[in-house]
Amino acid sequence: MTTTDRLTTAAIEADPELPLIRITRDFRASAAQLFRAHTNPEIYSRWCGPKSLDTRIDHWDARTGGSWAFTTIDRATEEEYSFHGCFHEVREDRLVQTFTFDGWPDGVSLDTMTFEDLGDGWTRMHSTSLLDSFEGRAAMLESGMEVGVNEGYEKLDALLEGGSVGG
Amino acid sequence: MTTTDRLTTAAIEADPELPLIRITRDFRASAAQLFRAHTNPEIYSRWCGPKSLDTRIDHWDARTGGSWAFTTIDRATEEEYSFHGCFHEVREDRLVQTFTFDGWPDGVSLDTMTFEDLGDGWTRMHSTSLLDSFEGRAAMLESGMEVGVNEGYEKLDALLEGGSVGG
Repeated sequence: MTTTDRLTTAAIEADPELPLIRITRDFRASAAQLFRAHTNPEIYSRWCGPKSLDTRIDHWDARTGGSWAFTTIDRATEEEYSFHGCFHEVREDRLVQTFTFDGWPDGVSLDTMTFEDLGDGWTRMHSTSLLDSFEGRAAMLESGMEVGVNEGYEKLDALLEGGSVGG
Repeated sequence: MTTTDRLTTAAIEADPELPLIRITRDFRASAAQLFRAHTNPEIYSRWCGPKSLDTRIDHWDARTGGSWAFTTIDRATEEEYSFHGCFHEVREDRLVQTFTFDGWPDGVSLDTMTFEDLGDGWTRMHSTSLLDSFEGRAAMLESGMEVGVNEGYEKLDALLEGGSVGG
Protein backbone atom coordinates (compact mmCIF):
# COMPACT_ATOMS: atom_id res chain seq x y z
CA MET A 1 0.00 0.00 0.00
CA THR A 2 1.45 3.36 -0.98
CA THR A 3 0.69 6.71 0.57
CA THR A 4 -1.66 7.47 -2.31
CA ASP A 5 -3.86 4.58 -1.19
CA ARG A 6 -4.42 6.22 2.18
CA LEU A 7 -7.89 7.50 2.96
CA THR A 8 -6.77 11.02 3.88
CA THR A 9 -10.21 12.24 2.89
CA ALA A 10 -12.84 10.42 4.91
CA ALA A 11 -14.93 7.79 3.13
CA ILE A 12 -18.51 8.42 4.30
CA GLU A 13 -20.86 5.61 3.32
CA ALA A 14 -24.53 4.86 3.91
CA ASP A 15 -25.03 1.16 4.64
CA PRO A 16 -27.45 -0.37 2.11
CA GLU A 17 -29.36 -2.48 4.68
CA LEU A 18 -29.09 -0.65 8.01
CA PRO A 19 -29.72 2.99 9.01
CA LEU A 20 -25.99 3.27 9.61
CA ILE A 21 -23.29 5.70 8.48
CA ARG A 22 -19.78 4.29 8.12
CA ILE A 23 -16.78 6.64 8.18
CA THR A 24 -13.29 5.38 7.37
CA ARG A 25 -10.23 7.64 7.63
CA ASP A 26 -6.49 7.00 7.76
CA PHE A 27 -4.11 8.97 9.96
CA ARG A 28 -0.34 9.12 10.23
CA ALA A 29 -0.63 8.20 13.88
CA SER A 30 -0.72 5.26 16.24
CA ALA A 31 -3.94 3.74 17.56
CA ALA A 32 -2.97 5.09 20.99
CA GLN A 33 -2.73 8.63 19.58
CA LEU A 34 -6.15 8.35 17.92
CA PHE A 35 -7.62 6.99 21.12
CA ARG A 36 -6.18 9.97 23.02
CA ALA A 37 -7.43 12.42 20.38
CA HIS A 38 -10.98 11.12 20.95
CA THR A 39 -10.91 10.81 24.74
CA ASN A 40 -8.79 13.73 25.97
CA PRO A 41 -11.12 16.75 26.14
CA GLU A 42 -8.41 19.39 25.59
CA ILE A 43 -7.18 17.66 22.45
CA TYR A 44 -10.69 16.80 21.21
CA SER A 45 -11.90 20.39 21.52
CA ARG A 46 -9.01 21.58 19.35
CA TRP A 47 -9.93 19.54 16.28
CA CYS A 48 -13.57 18.43 16.28
CA GLY A 49 -15.98 19.98 13.78
CA PRO A 50 -15.73 22.50 10.96
CA LYS A 51 -13.08 25.23 10.89
CA SER A 52 -15.65 28.00 11.31
CA LEU A 53 -16.62 26.77 14.80
CA ASP A 54 -14.98 26.68 18.20
CA THR A 55 -15.76 23.92 20.68
CA ARG A 56 -16.38 24.36 24.40
CA ILE A 57 -16.36 21.20 26.51
CA ASP A 58 -19.25 21.40 29.00
CA HIS A 59 -18.76 17.99 30.61
CA TRP A 60 -16.31 15.16 29.90
CA ASP A 61 -15.80 11.86 31.69
CA ALA A 62 -14.28 9.47 29.14
CA ARG A 63 -14.63 6.13 30.90
CA THR A 64 -17.03 3.23 30.54
CA GLY A 65 -20.25 4.54 32.08
CA GLY A 66 -19.20 8.19 31.86
CA SER A 67 -20.72 10.91 29.71
CA TRP A 68 -19.90 14.04 27.71
CA ALA A 69 -21.42 17.30 26.52
CA PHE A 70 -20.00 20.06 24.36
CA THR A 71 -21.12 23.22 22.60
CA THR A 72 -19.86 24.50 19.27
CA ILE A 73 -19.82 28.25 18.69
CA ASP A 74 -19.90 29.81 15.22
CA ARG A 75 -17.13 32.40 15.30
CA ALA A 76 -18.91 34.62 12.75
CA THR A 77 -22.47 34.58 14.13
CA GLU A 78 -21.82 33.46 17.76
CA GLU A 79 -24.62 30.89 17.31
CA GLU A 80 -24.22 27.91 19.63
CA TYR A 81 -25.08 24.26 19.00
CA SER A 82 -24.96 21.76 21.84
CA PHE A 83 -24.51 17.99 21.83
CA HIS A 84 -24.45 15.32 24.52
CA GLY A 85 -24.14 11.60 25.05
CA CYS A 86 -22.74 8.87 27.23
CA PHE A 87 -19.69 6.65 26.96
CA HIS A 88 -21.02 3.10 26.86
CA GLU A 89 -17.53 1.70 26.54
CA VAL A 90 -14.06 3.19 26.58
CA ARG A 91 -11.40 0.62 25.67
CA GLU A 92 -8.08 1.38 23.99
CA ASP A 93 -9.20 -0.54 20.90
CA ARG A 94 -12.88 0.44 20.92
CA LEU A 95 -15.06 3.41 21.82
CA VAL A 96 -18.85 3.10 22.00
CA GLN A 97 -20.88 6.17 22.80
CA THR A 98 -24.27 7.75 22.23
CA PHE A 99 -24.74 11.06 20.43
CA THR A 100 -27.57 13.60 20.41
CA PHE A 101 -27.74 17.07 18.86
CA ASP A 102 -29.73 18.97 21.47
CA GLY A 103 -31.64 20.79 18.72
CA TRP A 104 -33.17 17.42 17.83
CA PRO A 105 -33.50 15.98 21.34
CA ASP A 106 -35.26 12.70 20.46
CA GLY A 107 -32.66 11.77 17.82
CA VAL A 108 -29.95 9.45 19.10
CA SER A 109 -27.15 7.62 17.37
CA LEU A 110 -25.05 4.79 18.74
CA ASP A 111 -21.47 5.42 17.64
CA THR A 112 -18.71 2.81 17.57
CA MET A 113 -15.07 3.45 16.72
CA THR A 114 -12.18 1.03 16.29
CA PHE A 115 -8.56 1.56 15.22
CA GLU A 116 -6.72 -0.68 12.75
CA ASP A 117 -2.91 -0.60 12.58
CA LEU A 118 -1.94 -0.34 8.90
CA GLY A 119 1.82 -0.46 9.58
CA ASP A 120 4.39 2.20 8.56
CA GLY A 121 3.03 4.53 11.24
CA TRP A 122 -0.49 4.70 9.82
CA THR A 123 -3.76 3.75 11.53
CA ARG A 124 -7.20 3.39 9.98
CA MET A 125 -10.14 4.64 12.02
CA HIS A 126 -13.41 2.77 11.50
CA SER A 127 -16.41 4.68 12.81
CA THR A 128 -20.10 3.78 12.58
CA SER A 129 -23.20 5.71 13.61
CA LEU A 130 -26.36 3.66 13.97
CA LEU A 131 -29.72 5.46 13.90
CA ASP A 132 -33.21 4.10 14.49
CA SER A 133 -34.63 5.16 11.11
CA PHE A 134 -33.54 5.65 7.52
CA GLU A 135 -35.17 9.11 7.63
CA GLY A 136 -33.00 10.07 10.58
CA ARG A 137 -29.91 8.88 8.76
CA ALA A 138 -30.84 10.89 5.66
CA ALA A 139 -31.29 13.99 7.82
CA MET A 140 -27.85 13.45 9.35
CA LEU A 141 -26.17 12.90 5.96
CA GLU A 142 -27.85 16.02 4.58
CA SER A 143 -26.91 18.15 7.59
CA GLY A 144 -23.53 19.06 6.10
CA MET A 145 -21.70 16.54 8.29
CA GLU A 146 -19.16 15.92 5.50
CA VAL A 147 -17.66 19.41 5.91
CA GLY A 148 -17.37 19.02 9.68
CA VAL A 149 -15.91 15.53 9.41
CA ASN A 150 -13.26 16.41 6.83
CA GLU A 151 -12.29 19.80 8.23
CA GLY A 152 -12.11 18.30 11.71
CA TYR A 153 -9.83 15.48 10.62
CA GLU A 154 -7.58 17.97 8.78
CA LYS A 155 -7.20 19.84 12.07
CA LEU A 156 -6.39 16.53 13.77
CA ASP A 157 -3.76 15.78 11.08
CA ALA A 158 -2.12 19.12 11.89
CA LEU A 159 -2.19 18.48 15.65
CA LEU A 160 -0.61 15.04 15.11
CA GLU A 161 2.06 16.50 12.86
CA GLY A 162 2.77 19.30 15.32
CA GLY A 163 3.24 16.85 18.19
CA SER A 164 0.22 18.10 20.17
CA VAL A 165 -1.29 14.63 20.63
CA GLY A 166 1.75 13.09 22.30
CA GLY A 167 3.59 9.93 21.27
CA MET B 1 -61.19 -0.67 25.06
CA THR B 2 -62.03 -3.40 27.53
CA THR B 3 -59.68 -5.13 29.95
CA THR B 4 -59.47 -8.08 27.58
CA ASP B 5 -57.84 -5.81 25.00
CA ARG B 6 -54.97 -5.07 27.36
CA LEU B 7 -51.56 -6.42 26.45
CA THR B 8 -50.97 -8.17 29.77
CA THR B 9 -48.67 -10.56 27.95
CA ALA B 10 -45.90 -8.62 26.24
CA ALA B 11 -46.08 -8.30 22.45
CA ILE B 12 -42.51 -8.95 21.25
CA GLU B 13 -42.04 -8.06 17.59
CA ALA B 14 -39.10 -8.06 15.19
CA ASP B 15 -39.22 -4.99 12.95
CA PRO B 16 -39.30 -6.05 9.28
CA GLU B 17 -36.85 -3.36 8.10
CA LEU B 18 -34.57 -2.58 11.04
CA PRO B 19 -32.58 -4.81 13.42
CA LEU B 20 -34.95 -3.69 16.15
CA ILE B 21 -37.06 -5.53 18.73
CA ARG B 22 -40.28 -3.85 19.80
CA ILE B 23 -41.92 -4.78 23.11
CA THR B 24 -45.36 -3.46 24.05
CA ARG B 25 -46.95 -4.22 27.43
CA ASP B 26 -49.85 -2.71 29.38
CA PHE B 27 -49.81 -2.21 33.13
CA ARG B 28 -52.46 -1.20 35.62
CA ALA B 29 -50.25 1.68 36.69
CA SER B 30 -49.50 5.31 35.99
CA ALA B 31 -46.66 6.43 33.74
CA ALA B 32 -44.97 7.82 36.87
CA GLN B 33 -45.11 4.37 38.51
CA LEU B 34 -43.60 2.69 35.45
CA PHE B 35 -40.89 5.33 35.29
CA ARG B 36 -40.08 4.67 38.97
CA ALA B 37 -40.11 0.89 38.42
CA HIS B 38 -37.42 1.31 35.75
CA THR B 39 -35.25 3.91 37.47
CA ASN B 40 -35.37 3.05 41.19
CA PRO B 41 -32.75 0.33 41.75
CA GLU B 42 -34.46 -1.28 44.75
CA ILE B 43 -37.73 -1.66 42.86
CA TYR B 44 -36.04 -2.66 39.59
CA SER B 45 -34.04 -5.43 41.25
CA ARG B 46 -37.24 -6.95 42.67
CA TRP B 47 -38.90 -7.56 39.31
CA CYS B 48 -36.44 -7.66 36.42
CA GLY B 49 -35.76 -10.98 34.70
CA PRO B 50 -37.03 -14.55 35.01
CA LYS B 51 -38.39 -15.93 38.28
CA SER B 52 -35.49 -18.37 38.65
CA LEU B 53 -32.96 -15.53 39.03
CA ASP B 54 -32.15 -12.94 41.66
CA THR B 55 -30.75 -9.55 40.69
CA ARG B 56 -27.93 -7.72 42.43
CA ILE B 57 -27.45 -4.05 41.51
CA ASP B 58 -23.71 -3.38 41.13
CA HIS B 59 -23.98 0.28 40.09
CA TRP B 60 -26.96 2.55 39.47
CA ASP B 61 -27.08 6.23 38.61
CA ALA B 62 -30.37 6.80 36.78
CA ARG B 63 -29.88 10.28 35.36
CA THR B 64 -29.02 11.60 31.92
CA GLY B 65 -25.33 10.77 31.53
CA GLY B 66 -25.34 8.20 34.34
CA SER B 67 -24.81 4.46 34.05
CA TRP B 68 -25.85 1.11 35.50
CA ALA B 69 -24.61 -2.45 36.03
CA PHE B 70 -26.29 -5.47 37.54
CA THR B 71 -25.73 -9.18 37.95
CA THR B 72 -28.36 -11.89 37.87
CA ILE B 73 -27.80 -15.02 39.94
CA ASP B 74 -29.45 -18.34 39.16
CA ARG B 75 -30.85 -19.51 42.50
CA ALA B 76 -30.49 -23.20 41.54
CA THR B 77 -26.98 -23.20 40.04
CA GLU B 78 -25.55 -19.96 41.51
CA GLU B 79 -24.35 -19.03 38.01
CA GLU B 80 -23.98 -15.29 37.54
CA TYR B 81 -24.65 -13.19 34.43
CA SER B 82 -23.64 -9.54 34.33
CA PHE B 83 -24.95 -6.64 32.26
CA HIS B 84 -24.03 -2.98 31.98
CA GLY B 85 -24.88 0.18 30.11
CA CYS B 86 -25.30 3.92 30.35
CA PHE B 87 -28.32 6.16 30.67
CA HIS B 88 -28.28 8.40 27.60
CA GLU B 89 -31.47 10.13 28.68
CA VAL B 90 -33.69 9.92 31.74
CA ARG B 91 -36.90 11.93 31.30
CA GLU B 92 -40.21 11.16 32.96
CA ASP B 93 -41.72 10.37 29.55
CA ARG B 94 -38.69 8.74 27.94
CA LEU B 95 -35.76 6.54 28.90
CA VAL B 96 -32.87 5.93 26.51
CA GLN B 97 -30.08 3.63 27.58
CA THR B 98 -27.47 1.25 26.23
CA PHE B 99 -27.37 -2.44 27.12
CA THR B 100 -24.60 -5.05 26.97
CA PHE B 101 -24.56 -8.63 28.25
CA ASP B 102 -20.98 -8.92 29.54
CA GLY B 103 -20.74 -12.45 28.15
CA TRP B 104 -20.97 -10.90 24.67
CA PRO B 105 -18.96 -7.72 25.32
CA ASP B 106 -19.01 -6.29 21.79
CA GLY B 107 -22.79 -6.58 21.48
CA VAL B 108 -24.64 -3.38 22.32
CA SER B 109 -28.27 -2.39 22.01
CA LEU B 110 -29.74 1.09 22.19
CA ASP B 111 -32.95 0.83 24.20
CA THR B 112 -35.73 3.42 24.22
CA MET B 113 -38.83 3.34 26.40
CA THR B 114 -41.88 5.59 26.43
CA PHE B 115 -45.12 5.44 28.42
CA GLU B 116 -48.57 6.04 26.93
CA ASP B 117 -51.53 6.83 29.20
CA LEU B 118 -54.44 4.59 28.13
CA GLY B 119 -56.89 6.06 30.67
CA ASP B 120 -58.76 4.09 33.35
CA GLY B 121 -55.55 3.68 35.33
CA TRP B 122 -53.69 1.79 32.60
CA THR B 123 -50.43 2.73 30.87
CA ARG B 124 -48.86 1.18 27.79
CA MET B 125 -45.09 0.77 27.80
CA HIS B 126 -43.42 1.00 24.38
CA SER B 127 -39.89 -0.36 24.40
CA THR B 128 -37.47 -0.75 21.50
CA SER B 129 -34.02 -2.33 21.34
CA LEU B 130 -31.92 -1.38 18.31
CA LEU B 131 -28.97 -3.59 17.36
CA ASP B 132 -26.33 -3.12 14.70
CA SER B 133 -27.04 -6.35 12.84
CA PHE B 134 -29.92 -8.68 12.02
CA GLU B 135 -27.75 -11.58 13.24
CA GLY B 136 -27.35 -9.90 16.63
CA ARG B 137 -31.09 -9.38 16.85
CA ALA B 138 -31.77 -13.03 15.99
CA ALA B 139 -29.33 -14.09 18.73
CA MET B 140 -31.14 -11.87 21.23
CA LEU B 141 -34.59 -13.15 20.23
CA GLU B 142 -33.36 -16.75 20.47
CA SER B 143 -31.72 -16.21 23.88
CA GLY B 144 -34.94 -16.96 25.75
CA MET B 145 -35.64 -13.28 26.37
CA GLU B 146 -39.39 -13.92 26.13
CA VAL B 147 -39.41 -15.85 29.41
CA GLY B 148 -37.43 -13.16 31.21
CA VAL B 149 -39.58 -10.37 29.80
CA ASN B 150 -42.91 -11.96 30.66
CA GLU B 151 -41.95 -13.37 34.05
CA GLY B 152 -40.35 -10.04 34.96
CA TYR B 153 -43.46 -8.05 34.04
CA GLU B 154 -45.63 -10.49 36.03
CA LYS B 155 -43.45 -9.72 39.06
CA LEU B 156 -43.87 -6.01 38.35
CA ASP B 157 -47.67 -6.47 38.14
CA ALA B 158 -47.57 -8.03 41.61
CA LEU B 159 -45.41 -5.21 43.03
CA LEU B 160 -47.78 -2.63 41.58
CA GLU B 161 -50.81 -4.43 43.00
CA GLY B 162 -49.14 -4.79 46.39
CA GLY B 163 -48.37 -1.07 46.58
CA SER B 164 -44.59 -1.52 46.51
CA VAL B 165 -44.05 0.95 43.65
CA GLY B 166 -45.70 3.92 45.37
CA GLY B 167 -48.49 6.09 44.02
